Amino acid sequence: MAVGIIARLKIQPGKNKEFESIFTELQAAVRANEPGNNFYACHRTDDENVYVVMEQYKDQAAMDAHGASEHFKTIGAKLGGVMAGRPELERLTSID
Amino acid sequence: MAVGIIARLKIQPGKNKEFESIFTELQAAVRANEPGNNFYACHRTDDENVYVVMEQYKDQAAMDAHGASEHFKTIGAKLGGVMAGRPELERLTSID
Repeated sequence: MAVGIIARLKIQPGKNKEFESIFTELQAAVRANEPGNNFYACHRTDDENVYVVMEQYKDQAAMDAHGASEHFKTIGAKLGGVMAGRPELERLTSID
Repeated sequence: MAVGIIARLKIQPGKNKEFESIFTELQAAVRANEPGNNFYACHRTDDENVYVVMEQYKDQAAMDAHGASEHFKTIGAKLGGVMAGRPELERLTSID
């Protein structure tokens, strides 16, 4: 069964453009380099300081590979300067 | 920009097998018949009576087409007998 993640990210007010630019780069890297990733998409919410990332991986190993990837570490590190606290993660398991 | 939906579905206790069977049928129909759908995947959560569907559509028209589709109406109607109340929907907009 596939592993799903809903990540809720709170950013510092006014950092939207910078956050979206970094995340667009991260999305592109995930999609290009992770064969075990099924979906990875960042969304705006009704709260302009909160974003939601929908993620799905083929299995736990694919999710572990995401977290260990060079692109996640290097691009993810850039997010530190625009985030307000740690992401809130909800872990899910696909029905199929 | 693409439209994202996180749908949280509460079911009647003990109806998991029936719910998952119906939703597997619905997922297959969405994936086979909706060119405007980017992702549609139902997940189990930590609460055995609550499921989360991650959805993304190319645009609003594609989302409207989903709601108006024959498969959504006919298969969705079967869910009525296993759900506990109406789904809780969060509407999102992709950053790309």
